[in-house]
Amino acid sequence: MGNVITGEKEFFKGIGQIQFEGLESDNPLAFRWYDENRVVAGKTLKDHFKFACSYWHSFNGTGADPFGGASHIFPWDEKTDVIERAKDKMDAAFEFITKMNLPYYCFHDVDLVDYGNDVVENERRLAAIVEYAKEKQAESGVKLLWATANLFSHRRYMNGASTNPDFHVLAHGAAQVKAALDATIALKGENYVFWGGREGYMSLLNTNMKREQEHLAGFLHAAKDYARANGFTGNFFIEPKPCEPTKHQYDYDAATVLGFLQKYDLLGDFKINLEVNHATLAGHTMQHEMQVAADAGLLGSLDANRGDYQNGWDTDQFPNNAGELTECMLVFLEAGGLKGGGVNFDAKIRRNSTDRADLFYAHIGGMDTFAHALIAADAILQKSDYKKVREDRYASFDSGKGKAYEEGKLTLQDLRDYAVENGEPATISGKQEYMENVINRYV
Amino acid sequence: MGNVITGEKEFFKGIGQIQFEGLESDNPLAFRWYDENRVVAGKTLKDHFKFACSYWHSFNGTGADPFGGASHIFPWDEKTDVIERAKDKMDAAFEFITKMNLPYYCFHDVDLVDYGNDVVENERRLAAIVEYAKEKQAESGVKLLWATANLFSHRRYMNGASTNPDFHVLAHGAAQVKAALDATIALKGENYVFWGGREGYMSLLNTNMKREQEHLAGFLHAAKDYARANGFTGNFFIEPKPCEPTKHQYDYDAATVLGFLQKYDLLGDFKINLEVNHATLAGHTMQHEMQVAADAGLLGSLDANRGDYQNGWDTDQFPNNAGELTECMLVFLEAGGLKGGGVNFDAKIRRNSTDRADLFYAHIGGMDTFAHALIAADAILQKSDYKKVREDRYASFDSGKGKAYEEGKLTLQDLRDYAVENGEPATISGKQEYMENVINRYV
Amino acid sequence: MGNVITGEKEFFKGIGQIQFEGLESDNPLAFRWYDENRVVAGKTLKDHFKFACSYWHSFNGTGADPFGGASHIFPWDEKTDVIERAKDKMDAAFEFITKMNLPYYCFHDVDLVDYGNDVVENERRLAAIVEYAKEKQAESGVKLLWATANLFSHRRYMNGASTNPDFHVLAHGAAQVKAALDATIALKGENYVFWGGREGYMSLLNTNMKREQEHLAGFLHAAKDYARANGFTGNFFIEPKPCEPTKHQYDYDAATVLGFLQKYDLLGDFKINLEVNHATLAGHTMQHEMQVAADAGLLGSLDANRGDYQNGWDTDQFPNNAGELTECMLVFLEAGGLKGGGVNFDAKIRRNSTDRADLFYAHIGGMDTFAHALIAADAILQKSDYKKVREDRYASFDSGKGKAYEEGKLTLQDLRDYAVENGEPATISGKQEYMENVINRYV
Amino acid sequence: MGNVITGEKEFFKGIGQIQFEGLESDNPLAFRWYDENRVVAGKTLKDHFKFACSYWHSFNGTGADPFGGASHIFPWDEKTDVIERAKDKMDAAFEFITKMNLPYYCFHDVDLVDYGNDVVENERRLAAIVEYAKEKQAESGVKLLWATANLFSHRRYMNGASTNPDFHVLAHGAAQVKAALDATIALKGENYVFWGGREGYMSLLNTNMKREQEHLAGFLHAAKDYARANGFTGNFFIEPKPCEPTKHQYDYDAATVLGFLQKYDLLGDFKINLEVNHATLAGHTMQHEMQVAADAGLLGSLDANRGDYQNGWDTDQFPNNAGELTECMLVFLEAGGLKGGGVNFDAKIRRNSTDRADLFYAHIGGMDTFAHALIAADAILQKSDYKKVREDRYASFDSGKGKAYEEGKLTLQDLRDYAVENGEPATISGKQEYMENVINRYV
Repeated sequence: MGNVITGEKEFFKGIGQIQFEGLESDNPLAFRWYDENRVVAGKTLKDHFKFACSYWHSFNGTGADPFGGASHIFPWDEKTDVIERAKDKMDAAFEFITKMNLPYYCFHDVDLVDYGNDVVENERRLAAIVEYAKEKQAESGVKLLWATANLFSHRRYMNGASTNPDFHVLAHGAAQVKAALDATIALKGENYVFWGGREGYMSLLNTNMKREQEHLAGFLHAAKDYARANGFTGNFFIEPKPCEPTKHQYDYDAATVLGFLQKYDLLGDFKINLEVNHATLAGHTMQHEMQVAADAGLLGSLDANRGDYQNGWDTDQFPNNAGELTECMLVFLEAGGLKGGGVNFDAKIRRNSTDRADLFYAHIGGMDTFAHALIAADAILQKSDYKKVREDRYASFDSGKGKAYEEGKLTLQDLRDYAVENGEPATISGKQEYMENVINRYV
Repeated sequence: MGNVITGEKEFFKGIGQIQFEGLESDNPLAFRWYDENRVVAGKTLKDHFKFACSYWHSFNGTGADPFGGASHIFPWDEKTDVIERAKDKMDAAFEFITKMNLPYYCFHDVDLVDYGNDVVENERRLAAIVEYAKEKQAESGVKLLWATANLFSHRRYMNGASTNPDFHVLAHGAAQVKAALDATIALKGENYVFWGGREGYMSLLNTNMKREQEHLAGFLHAAKDYARANGFTGNFFIEPKPCEPTKHQYDYDAATVLGFLQKYDLLGDFKINLEVNHATLAGHTMQHEMQVAADAGLLGSLDANRGDYQNGWDTDQFPNNAGELTECMLVFLEAGGLKGGGVNFDAKIRRNSTDRADLFYAHIGGMDTFAHALIAADAILQKSDYKKVREDRYASFDSGKGKAYEEGKLTLQDLRDYAVENGEPATISGKQEYMENVINRYV
Repeated sequence: MGNVITGEKEFFKGIGQIQFEGLESDNPLAFRWYDENRVVAGKTLKDHFKFACSYWHSFNGTGADPFGGASHIFPWDEKTDVIERAKDKMDAAFEFITKMNLPYYCFHDVDLVDYGNDVVENERRLAAIVEYAKEKQAESGVKLLWATANLFSHRRYMNGASTNPDFHVLAHGAAQVKAALDATIALKGENYVFWGGREGYMSLLNTNMKREQEHLAGFLHAAKDYARANGFTGNFFIEPKPCEPTKHQYDYDAATVLGFLQKYDLLGDFKINLEVNHATLAGHTMQHEMQVAADAGLLGSLDANRGDYQNGWDTDQFPNNAGELTECMLVFLEAGGLKGGGVNFDAKIRRNSTDRADLFYAHIGGMDTFAHALIAADAILQKSDYKKVREDRYASFDSGKGKAYEEGKLTLQDLRDYAVENGEPATISGKQEYMENVINRYV
Repeated sequence: MGNVITGEKEFFKGIGQIQFEGLESDNPLAFRWYDENRVVAGKTLKDHFKFACSYWHSFNGTGADPFGGASHIFPWDEKTDVIERAKDKMDAAFEFITKMNLPYYCFHDVDLVDYGNDVVENERRLAAIVEYAKEKQAESGVKLLWATANLFSHRRYMNGASTNPDFHVLAHGAAQVKAALDATIALKGENYVFWGGREGYMSLLNTNMKREQEHLAGFLHAAKDYARANGFTGNFFIEPKPCEPTKHQYDYDAATVLGFLQKYDLLGDFKINLEVNHATLAGHTMQHEMQVAADAGLLGSLDANRGDYQNGWDTDQFPNNAGELTECMLVFLEAGGLKGGGVNFDAKIRRNSTDRADLFYAHIGGMDTFAHALIAADAILQKSDYKKVREDRYASFDSGKGKAYEEGKLTLQDLRDYAVENGEPATISGKQEYMENVINRYV
């Protein structure tokens, strides 16, 4: 299928819409696993995943890194007029998203249009491009999964935004969030995300951590109150990350965010947006982070990518590990899916992936890996004894004294007496290798 | 000074009491910084630190590791009678503790006396050695900082203790805790610690994390209720560790424990016992962990040791980094010290440190490093502009709109309007290198 | 199929021989991928892999870890007579190996029979069990892939063996190696391995690294000379590991070992035995280590296992990641396989895997993952453009000036002039995401 | 003291020359330890260290990171004419270097002056600013410790420079190196450095590692031959780093570089430039890397900085850990100092250190820490039993059979017989804690 909506301005020239051709296909520009209409566990793959394109990596990411400048040069960055340039970028974005069959997209305010230092002018710019985005959404059927404000790239946020020691900077962060919330509401965005890239510290020596965290909590309350008052009914997500660019980021991991939301009475409105590479930087598997969030009813959304286990920073590579992802999809399915969110590709092609087609290969690989993993996880849950083995391990708590314990009816003395009466327990294998084989049987 | 209390059985023969000789001393068996009577920030060093000896590392630790058996062969392990052997060990322990000038000690139940599989017989053994310990304490003036039950070494705990899928095993854990609490109370122990060495998982595939964590919470409640009903008025401490021996331990770090205590309504009775090597395994500095705990009023006690930044397991080496420890002591002093606990050397001499004197060198180095660090931290707080620089950074929140924000009086719209009215903020340096120089000026 | 060779002493009672049943099999005690007679890339899977069982993990490993004692209690450890006990263990080993269809085994001297402190008595014990092993090998057709001497578990090696500062200890290490070489020769062992578990340092402060490394080199020369003089024609392997139990181990990784072999003139006789978990502890992928060794003609043998990316020690889990292993098998196939060695499962079941069947599940998973990966890698090499894409990247060096450069014919000035004449180069994508998709297409 | 050389263009206005005021000084802009004329171990501190300023971090580094743009805005970057702008920058540089009392500086070609895509024009620009640098050097007495060419920032090097799969790109790298060597010679640079920032791979899947490493070796030979033919008599240095920006960099660590130099016959001319943060990223201590280099006679130069043990990337902070550095200085002194190089501050002030004075504080802290550490290390070597304890450990190799072993006179059989004759060795403590106390006694 040809180019659907971009008319004359075809930025990804020569690449048509990516379609499902199945496992035997030799076409490198085709899905092998991802058929958006395939039904797994009662839902289409499209509805399970709500795949979203990340504006920032795909249309703003230049391939620069700390040791080199831009390697990706974009034709949509050429015009001098700020709004016209932003429209070109949006044309490119919707061309890509549509060809790629992605039903959703996500953005930071400054991804859509360049910001300067004037708050009012920035609001005007954002409003202008939002009008254009409304048209593009209507035209294509693509929806906004979530939006956010970039409170970390501008120099003024070098000491934090809502946790900046200077109230003046915090106010600028609030101004950006207000405009980003307005944009979200205007575009019927389904969720709104807070990633506190600089909400942490570079050195504890110059930091009052307690005061900064209280400021952060106050900021979230103010944002939530504003959005609710203005009709936003979607979810708020906190996205944990342990560090980078800061030495330490306050939203370290899912457990830390859960504690924070509890402490500052934000549990009702906020959920968690988990990212694979952030999980591994924090010393966790993604499955673990998902389980922590799911157990607390906070599994909101996913930033799909992967890190490099040998490199200690956020490499943001596209997902390609079907085995690991299958374990994640087990948690996903058992949790009943995501609370309001979807699967956003917060991933970037490598600095040296400079062909226009590389962006397609990357998304094809990522979407296919998710599809593969979900299909495998569903098979495990449907066909294997995976669930049963795990449930049986806890059977001693389903009745008798074990149940009484779960219900809080036994004292320490009762427990001690039970031990005395029943002697040394039998040795019961955890059967870990067996369980691992079960997983591999279906991947 | 000669051997004080051990009479004929002198296990650390030829080593007299360790004393303060000051900075110019050439005596390797003398303190250079630690004078227990030296007053810093209004208290003696002895009272600040409440240094404690770890029974397990010093008197049970054989030097074995995953690649080799015992290298430390102890003369107090020779007798065949369980209680007599335990008494010999206790004689050695009190000889060392007294010579070393350590005012406190800490133990797990099975450190004091060997346990078998019979609960009642184990209780009898512990009671017997506790009687002997009472005498040793009275004789020497040494006190019990905290006790705990070892719920991780026995084969039955291989799948966890209070988080074991088998209720029967949980009951055995409870029996041990009950006896350990009885011992703590009998010995006037000032605190009681829970380190959940196997309270976590080896594989998420066979684990119901939510159910296990609820069991853990119930277990802590039962233990607390029992202890309180039996007259224990001290603190309960949770000791965080991220992993090892498990793949993942539920009490991952201070923030995770804080969230857990909050969620399960344990904040009133429980505080946190932080260990340096556990902090670094969790990806944090010790200062950070201490600040997190202090900010929540939970800075209970410290397990003093250090890890090796190039090795990824718990090396449990003795503290020797005065620079890092000075930053910890800044948090310590600003928090007003520890809530009930002290500084316990949860550290072991190396496998190849086989001279009897090595245990003394290790403790001398550790105690001196703490003394050095506290003296430096006090000087920084008293003489430098360290506190002022940090406080001044937040001055914008001390009055005017910033203060109103802290008091929750500003909406997002108010904040945005403030940003518009006041234009782009000035750029304010974090002065990190300056602060680092200030620290180094006093170490 | 029933128990093949152990007669009355059936240690793995009720488990028959593991056979290939194919991908659709529901039998958890069957191979799905590994059919030893399946031909891939011109050889049977049996010949490609030469799978070997590790005596130490499977028949000596008690499940103990730094935080707990034995959890695996073996029926073959019951007899009091040293040699009889060793024979029971060997019966169990050969029963398992035969049921598992493993064509090879590997051992350390002390795995076969317990050693004491008397060199001559130890030699006698080893000789006795070697006689028995000869019978078992003849009976079963199982062969010895390699043997080694354990120079790290005994207390005397706590400061190293061939790198011990005490010559006396080095001599004991030599005595053990001599006996182990004698055993290897007697059992027609195909290779001999050196893993220097304690050949490194705990602290650089008390270490003369240069002298220790020279001692190590001299030791390897002495061992090689002895073995060659006594008819051993197989390979010697060095097994790299970066640390643990030492702080730093001299045979850090493949590149370090290559430099060492070069420097000390050992390249002719020594090759490298790579272990997956050692690669990752050293900060490398296993593919990387294999490529380094292969490029130097030193890819000798593999220790198959996997680490845990979230835990910083040698977890020695069984392989189960088909994706990662497929990348390894690409190197394996392109290098033309291993130089003399095979694939040894240097992996252990978890502490809490206490069912006798768990050892089978673990090996089934490991062998199947290798088979799966090799089949996938072969398909990639045969059917995809993987090789072509990579070769084409370097085409500019296959002719013209590029070729002249490779032949050393161009000066810096020539190169500079070429740059001037040819202007700015075209931008050529590395196509990494495309390549990753190619791999995933066949796993 | 006032501004020394910059005349009207005073970029670091208000900051005079930094001087030694001693340990009791309260002046934050004064050295406490570093007095360039202080004699330690027979040389002045100035001659020991040959401290050098890094042009790139101090005068080009904008404070940008992967999550944000420039935070350091420089007055010397304002002019539009390329050469005039470069001269302003050089004025600022020499003003800083002179005020700071740094006797040396270091640069990459593109640090001095902006490059475009035209080789000949770039050569012209570099030559022009080199002329100016000659004047500045003459005027100030500041010397060039080393120069290098930046072969990693330009888009064309995204797949490597001398290891690029495209010969055309390699030629451009050579052109830059030629011009940089010409500049080095013109400025009497004492050394020339190769840091292969992109000489490695992003993915092994698209990489021919062997061919790339051979290209690298050929490139170094060509550069060396050119430089020698044109009168350069200084050292060439390879600077190891394990990764970042690449997934894997070929010059991984000191041992890897040593093996490479050996293999490709470059040992005569090349030595190693070690960087602290690169050592720790590779899983080593800096002491270790220095000892490896020193043992091979390759300890050429040092890049002084530090990493953050909790963050997995190159943070390039200024040195401030006197304890760790003292252990480095022990190796430094025992090796007889550096082979031709010096101590270059390859370190950057934090993104949020935006005061002009911060650059001074950072260098003051770094230089003082080095001075402190060298003075401590010298005291340890002069006054303590540190050397003796270590030497005594190896005494068994200084005479008798041990000596014969070192001389290669003993066979494996001889060694075995020695073990039999002499029975079980005595247990000898490694005394690690004692040695650590000795160090701390002098820091």
